[in-house]
Amino acid sequence: MLPAVNLTVVLHQTRSPDNLGAVARVMANFGFSRLVLSDPATYAFRAAERLAVKSDSVLDAMAVAQNLPEALKDCVYAVGTTSRTQIEGRTALTPEEAAARLADQSRRGRVALVMGGEQRGLSNEELAFCTDFLVIPTSDVQPSMNLAQATAVLLYLCSREGRKPAEAVAPVAPVASEQQGAKMGTVRALGERMRQVMLEAQFLNPQAPDHILMELERSLLRAELTQREAELWLTAFKHVGRAMGGGKGTPGKGAPSPGPGQDG
Amino acid sequence: MLPAVNLTVVLHQTRSPDNLGAVARVMANFGFSRLVLSDPATYAFRAAERLAVKSDSVLDAMAVAQNLPEALKDCVYAVGTTSRTQIEGRTALTPEEAAARLADQSRRGRVALVMGGEQRGLSNEELAFCTDFLVIPTSDVQPSMNLAQATAVLLYLCSREGRKPAEAVAPVAPVASEQQGAKMGTVRALGERMRQVMLEAQFLNPQAPDHILMELERSLLRAELTQREAELWLTAFKHVGRAMGGGKGTPGKGAPSPGPGQDG
Repeated sequence: MLPAVNLTVVLHQTRSPDNLGAVARVMANFGFSRLVLSDPATYAFRAAERLAVKSDSVLDAMAVAQNLPEALKDCVYAVGTTSRTQIEGRTALTPEEAAARLADQSRRGRVALVMGGEQRGLSNEELAFCTDFLVIPTSDVQPSMNLAQATAVLLYLCSREGRKPAEAVAPVAPVASEQQGAKMGTVRALGERMRQVMLEAQFLNPQAPDHILMELERSLLRAELTQREAELWLTAFKHVGRAMGGGKGTPGKGAPSPGPGQDG
Repeated sequence: MLPAVNLTVVLHQTRSPDNLGAVARVMANFGFSRLVLSDPATYAFRAAERLAVKSDSVLDAMAVAQNLPEALKDCVYAVGTTSRTQIEGRTALTPEEAAARLADQSRRGRVALVMGGEQRGLSNEELAFCTDFLVIPTSDVQPSMNLAQATAVLLYLCSREGRKPAEAVAPVAPVASEQQGAKMGTVRALGERMRQVMLEAQFLNPQAPDHILMELERSLLRAELTQREAELWLTAFKHVGRAMGGGKGTPGKGAPSPGPGQDG
């Protein structure tokens, strides 16, 4: 099952107030309320109200983020939408697989469905910020879907997951704090810290550090770290960086004590 | 499997050129091309082109029908979309059930997905022209979906049916003419003829003939008549009417000979 409160819809570089309004309406149709605009290409939010019939609550609660990493920082999982089925060796999920994975990962915390802008969708770099990516199969005649219609298809599938009963293995009680999934913001901060340390250690090629770093980051995402584990990793790299004498910023605090049940 | 050429999208009393364009685009997205407008509330078809990105072929081939029965006359099966889960003792299909039934019935001939107008959807009378009806489950916060977004959800499910391999029991060869499903136009003409005959025979209450007549018609639809059987029924009622001396129109021809493989 996918609790509606755990799903965030992220619209990246949305250009059309009409699309924004139509997305708000279909979110209300399927009972979803968390909408984040990432680096919006329009701020004509009032113009969106024309199409956001009976979905003022979605627009009122909408948040704006400067970029995609910021939009995803509180989420433990994100799936981006694209039309490319193969990207750098990764294979796209079907819409059904993506809805099932969003539901599964929502047991660990907030999850995000990321929709690209009208003009060019999500770039490979932007998709790299997402844990997975999905493709809605379309015809060669007109492969490119309207943003709000693609969102309608995906939220329908998510709402169907939401109506399924929780699996027997799913915890009935709220997620214990030590099982809370790592927020993508923390994983991102970890990635940045890893970059500094590994560049200074001359492990990464300064001309092209991203490819190897992405592989490392992706392996951490696949590990489904808890928030505590991600914070431990982050603090560890801060200390390593300081020990190497890089001195770019001093870590705020030492390693958290490893006792169980404590937040790092 | 659901051959795309066998699915007709019927928009009844569509009011907004934007919605018309958006429906054309999502039809092209999923490889469908047969669009019929039934009793349209706008004829600003050129205005629809703005949203019908790369879907001119859909708009160019679009047909216009004066009313819903005319729009459906060549189809053997139609499912109408509504928000009411119970109508006169009939129960709504889920979107998945409707897509599966459209695929199944497409082995008999053309099938139709009927979408109601923006302002009031499909009335009970209009839904009675459809073999089945479906409901997309939505939230109480905003139960009413945008027309084009609802169409996107349903055509996605239909396109998924289209990608499934044909069942082993399905005929690989084109449908033999004697197995061609009865066209709803023929069934409708049969219904009209039955009404005349049964009113004259004082079987139907002239003040309220429709309810009983609908029950009879529905039982015929459930029987999945072949076109030949429907024509036999129709001709039979023409003869009965003439024999009763009603004299409203003379039948064009006598009963077809019952030899196999002949068209009536």
